[in-house]
Amino acid sequence: MLLWSGQVGVEMTNELSPITLKPIGVVHNEVKERPPAEVSDWFLEIISEIVIEPRLTEALDGLEGFSHIIVLYWMHHPVSGEIQNKRHPQGRKDVPIVGLFATRAPHRPNRIGKTTVRLLRRQGNTLRVKGLDALDGTPVLDIKPYIPGYDSVADAKFPQWTIKLYPWI
Amino acid sequence: MLLWSGQVGVEMTNELSPITLKPIGVVHNEVKERPPAEVSDWFLEIISEIVIEPRLTEALDGLEGFSHIIVLYWMHHPVSGEIQNKRHPQGRKDVPIVGLFATRAPHRPNRIGKTTVRLLRRQGNTLRVKGLDALDGTPVLDIKPYIPGYDSVADAKFPQWTIKLYPWI
Repeated sequence: MLLWSGQVGVEMTNELSPITLKPIGVVHNEVKERPPAEVSDWFLEIISEIVIEPRLTEALDGLEGFSHIIVLYWMHHPVSGEIQNKRHPQGRKDVPIVGLFATRAPHRPNRIGKTTVRLLRRQGNTLRVKGLDALDGTPVLDIKPYIPGYDSVADAKFPQWTIKLYPWI
Repeated sequence: MLLWSGQVGVEMTNELSPITLKPIGVVHNEVKERPPAEVSDWFLEIISEIVIEPRLTEALDGLEGFSHIIVLYWMHHPVSGEIQNKRHPQGRKDVPIVGLFATRAPHRPNRIGKTTVRLLRRQGNTLRVKGLDALDGTPVLDIKPYIPGYDSVADAKFPQWTIKLYPWI
């Protein structure tokens, strides 16, 4: 096991070189700043328009056949303090301290947000969606169709504290 | 609408500046090259080890409480030809031509893959997972807990052709 870990270490040097992304679009909605942490369900009814680069308009064809899409975006809004490996999720003291990868916090090494939203309408290079928890002006990195059975799990388990953060799940 | 689109165009110039990511880890498994497109379920039983940078080991604490995790990774393997806005998904002629954002193809502007996998074991900075459709050596960008009701949708609709590509859904 140790020997194997050593080999991994060597390989990681090559595999961890930086990657440059170019956003494909931007989010427009009424949310100008991040709501307070105690309002956990603020985004469920939010309507956003995602405007995709015009040269990629055709690449959206066929997305209308899906009721839901996955939006990957860059959580560009400022967050205070340095990234800590462990913290109370959403700063809530009633939830145990866990590692950042056990949370959906924007405070992470690569600030990619991932939200499944309802696609209300696609018109040209604009997608109107419901339930996106991204702020106005958020750069969009990718759009994917939501595929049940690939993206969803029937019997997933999660710790009890998750319900405090997502009371509707 | 036209005026609004014009305003968006102006804003997009600012919002679309490049973003640099640094991978947080790497995938290790037995899959050295992409299986042929007709074998769509090749990854369901694949066991992978995701080795995270040692300095981020603590940031994985608490992930053990989740049965499933979401892996965001960089689809680094070479793909032939230029990115086309529209094509047959997986090159399959029995499926209609659709836009790339209506598919999960690696051939996309930002090659971020997103897969929900079963977390079999976490040991230090290594996550053993089942069902990751990434090749050996794939750079990992982010790890998130899978949260039912946030990541899943009960009543999602999808086009009929999707079933040809994902027959088990």
